Amino acid sequence: MNETIKTLLNRRSIRSYTPEQLKDDDLQIILKTGKFAPSAMNQQSWHFTVVQNKEILQRINQVIRAIFLKSGNAHFEEMAKADTFHVFYNAPTLIIVSGDEKAIAPQCDCALAMGNLFLAASSLGIGSCWIHALTQLDTTPEGTKLISDLGIPSGNKIFASGAFGYAASETPTPAPRKDNAVNII
Amino acid sequence: MNETIKTLLNRRSIRSYTPEQLKDDDLQIILKTGKFAPSAMNQQSWHFTVVQNKEILQRINQVIRAIFLKSGNAHFEEMAKADTFHVFYNAPTLIIVSGDEKAIAPQCDCALAMGNLFLAASSLGIGSCWIHALTQLDTTPEGTKLISDLGIPSGNKIFASGAFGYAASETPTPAPRKDNAVNII
Repeated sequence: MNETIKTLLNRRSIRSYTPEQLKDDDLQIILKTGKFAPSAMNQQSWHFTVVQNKEILQRINQVIRAIFLKSGNAHFEEMAKADTFHVFYNAPTLIIVSGDEKAIAPQCDCALAMGNLFLAASSLGIGSCWIHALTQLDTTPEGTKLISDLGIPSGNKIFASGAFGYAASETPTPAPRKDNAVNII
Repeated sequence: MNETIKTLLNRRSIRSYTPEQLKDDDLQIILKTGKFAPSAMNQQSWHFTVVQNKEILQRINQVIRAIFLKSGNAHFEEMAKADTFHVFYNAPTLIIVSGDEKAIAPQCDCALAMGNLFLAASSLGIGSCWIHALTQLDTTPEGTKLISDLGIPSGNKIFASGAFGYAASETPTPAPRKDNAVNII
């Protein structure tokens, strides 16, 4: 089994991080792999916003908390009430991938780019987790203001976001894979 | 630079294939990496339909051709009029990833799974290309019948499909990456 396939099979989502920040060289190579994902008609419809400033990370968490508290979803409301609520698990780096809504397939482009970021990170010993909640930022005025303050290009929508950092605990055992997921004709 | 990062940077979309079929062992390991992609709340909302039967591949191409001819898009209509039209470039294997429409984020789950298939294939010397047209299969009665005949689970939507095979020409040089795609805060 080659190294790439080992990375593909062994990367797990990490939900507990140390405060140690990513090395800048590692961040740069991770971002580069995102830019080399495939995209529809090579539109490269993605834009990467890397957030490492602690105050801004805290503000993002608070805006998401407010969205969860008003979500009407009992599970999300319960999560957001906890004092320890942190939607990206106190990871030191958050990467937001937004895409041009007028592109052919920005949701696919951005998901593939984020997948590359995850795998590059994993190959460097850096943990990551898809954080879907940020796709809801544009549903409140506070979230819309935050999107603007983050410098996300006008006309872009957030299609993916991910927490990145060093795992604070052992890599989780993978959940069993579902049966009957393949049909060969 | 480690092997995984090399694969992430060097995989290119391939649009010309030899008739040589994938080895079954390679297909199995490629599919396994798809099942180990991350998914929202571990729902694994994906289903993989692998098509290698030449008559069925031909039928898929003809249904897509008919959709293109009636698309109202001059570019697609022109493509479909060509005698040589083949939406997945005569690749010997087509993999369709469909997702449960009632899942949390099936479009993300399926795109991440397809990304893993592409990267595993690349690491094994096998070319691939995202074929977006199949997401349109459910827009005509013939396409809907085909989806059913392919055994795609009821309630699933096609979110991704990809051509797989051995490249018939050299790996293309990557197009230049866009500037200003990253903002670090």
